[in-house]
Amino acid sequence: MSRQVNFAAGPSTLPYDVLLEAQAEFVDYHGGGVSLIEMSHRSPEYEAVQGSALELAKELLGVPEDFDALVLQGGATLQFAMVPMNLLHGGASGAYVDSGSWASKAMADASHHGESYAAWSGADGGYTAMPSPDEVEVRPGTRYLHVTSNETIGGIQMTQWPDVEVPLVGDMSSDYMSRTIPWDRFDIVYGGAQKNMGPAGATLVFVRRSILDETNRDLASYLRYDIHAAKGSMYNTPPVFAIYMMSRVLEWVKAQGGLPAMEERAAIRSALVYGAIDASDGYYRSPVDAASRSKMNVVFRLSSEELEAQFVSEASEAGMANLKGHRDVGGIRASLYNAMPIEGVELLAEFMSDFRRANAE
Amino acid sequence: MSRQVNFAAGPSTLPYDVLLEAQAEFVDYHGGGVSLIEMSHRSPEYEAVQGSALELAKELLGVPEDFDALVLQGGATLQFAMVPMNLLHGGASGAYVDSGSWASKAMADASHHGESYAAWSGADGGYTAMPSPDEVEVRPGTRYLHVTSNETIGGIQMTQWPDVEVPLVGDMSSDYMSRTIPWDRFDIVYGGAQKNMGPAGATLVFVRRSILDETNRDLASYLRYDIHAAKGSMYNTPPVFAIYMMSRVLEWVKAQGGLPAMEERAAIRSALVYGAIDASDGYYRSPVDAASRSKMNVVFRLSSEELEAQFVSEASEAGMANLKGHRDVGGIRASLYNAMPIEGVELLAEFMSDFRRANAE
Repeated sequence: MSRQVNFAAGPSTLPYDVLLEAQAEFVDYHGGGVSLIEMSHRSPEYEAVQGSALELAKELLGVPEDFDALVLQGGATLQFAMVPMNLLHGGASGAYVDSGSWASKAMADASHHGESYAAWSGADGGYTAMPSPDEVEVRPGTRYLHVTSNETIGGIQMTQWPDVEVPLVGDMSSDYMSRTIPWDRFDIVYGGAQKNMGPAGATLVFVRRSILDETNRDLASYLRYDIHAAKGSMYNTPPVFAIYMMSRVLEWVKAQGGLPAMEERAAIRSALVYGAIDASDGYYRSPVDAASRSKMNVVFRLSSEELEAQFVSEASEAGMANLKGHRDVGGIRASLYNAMPIEGVELLAEFMSDFRRANAE
Repeated sequence: MSRQVNFAAGPSTLPYDVLLEAQAEFVDYHGGGVSLIEMSHRSPEYEAVQGSALELAKELLGVPEDFDALVLQGGATLQFAMVPMNLLHGGASGAYVDSGSWASKAMADASHHGESYAAWSGADGGYTAMPSPDEVEVRPGTRYLHVTSNETIGGIQMTQWPDVEVPLVGDMSSDYMSRTIPWDRFDIVYGGAQKNMGPAGATLVFVRRSILDETNRDLASYLRYDIHAAKGSMYNTPPVFAIYMMSRVLEWVKAQGGLPAMEERAAIRSALVYGAIDASDGYYRSPVDAASRSKMNVVFRLSSEELEAQFVSEASEAGMANLKGHRDVGGIRASLYNAMPIEGVELLAEFMSDFRRANAE
């Protein structure tokens, strides 16, 4: 089968050239007689790979010098634990913007390791919008406000950061490396690599160095940010292959024009799909607030689940895979990460138009 | 360069045929038009891979029906946290056999999440021996005895399990899938895959199902065994590629004759190196107690660090890589995991004999 246009929500499509390069050097890395995944993580070859991945991530995202870049395991989900465990030990509270499935999980997990509360909730609105900056209110004694910059399932994205006095902690798993980050607002930014930056298995975490003086020491080693920072993310064996792939994808991002190019393409891609929705006279319906439309995950509905199933099936036959919405919410979801070619999204927009004509009601 | 005989301690050598197979299907998995690492972890293709990895692991290790097989991230190091967090919440203690670097880390990490103590320590003996079964004493109120079945750095292996009344918890990272496990003695067995079973990035954990009724619920989700078990290790995105490689390595193990073949080969390989040591009239010295000699990591010394450096360098020129001992202890270390060809070890034994003749003192 020829290569699919792959709209999967994560793990998700990767740059084809990166896949070919990784394949070519997979068995015998740079002629050294072994695969990179067979080498000690202390070998100069692997240390160069991990170093390059972290340096490139900082360079591309414009991360200030006073942040440490860490690469960990366990996904954003383990960060749901580590953030409160490291920051709430002094009795302070963690405030959460409850913007959808992922934010709710982060908040619930935090409740086991400190006081956590919703500083705003979109639950009553069915999680179809992000808050405006002045809607978010934090209580005295709050250590941080946790935000989920993009809700992969709900298809909403935070475009304006909350107007609060406390530092932000951001789960940016699904729009990492596709937008600029106001670093002065954040103490911690984290996210899995498996959407915009690589395959599953690596979590990229940025921690403001000055807060490492006061993070919790009464924790097992793997759960401590200060240890990972002091050891250059080599406290224990890192997930070699996932980090290698991340380094290659980030090199690809740089060669494509870096973050500005990724940001521009995200705008173009999402405009193509939202344009097809808006031009459809209600045939396709976006359930989300216009101001909160995600540039990464475009969700939309048709008039019936049968028609949605037909849409997914015919799109798949036309070479566009994984358009089915998340099982919790149904509908259609097109995930448009960095490695998605604009031509692939043009194909989808065209298909949406054709499908509508062929299946008018 | 032709393929190296790779004695790395982990990440470590993998079966060459598995590397070739993984390379061949890397870009376009089974003709589906995408790479496996670009697929949703909920796709039938990936679910089959993970299911097969866990089923094969259970089959090969003869795991009884009342154990759940989990595949997690964070290595054995995260298990150093999860074991006490899940088991010591009722005020019980965790006893540890302090047999070396890894056991000491596990015990120190546990102290942050419950009461932990050394039920035996090899510190005074320089960690050169495992305890005899009757030397290990646990106190009343002990929930488990934690054992490190093989110390990768010290080069010692536990061949007789401690004679205690409490259930064992085993870190088997470095001799997993190379020996039989007395399952009736264990509540939990865990270990990283990156030595005998695959690349870095996946941790294989077996948990006795009946204890999941009483594990700690007051923890963030990722840290709870019961959640991973209930969700079939799909609570969050698993490390797809590492698990895929593990499934392929386990298929290779099965094709080679399963655990009995791995056990037999481990005996043959280690006998070759210990034989060369013992036949050297003290030119090569094993620092460890004869009864505790590891079949996985053979450590030995020469008369000076200069000679050791020369040994490592000349071996490397002869195609045998990564023989340098761990930086904490120095000397030579030959790690002899499942994928190490016996011919590679014969080459090493021959080289040891030649080197001794050429550099007699």
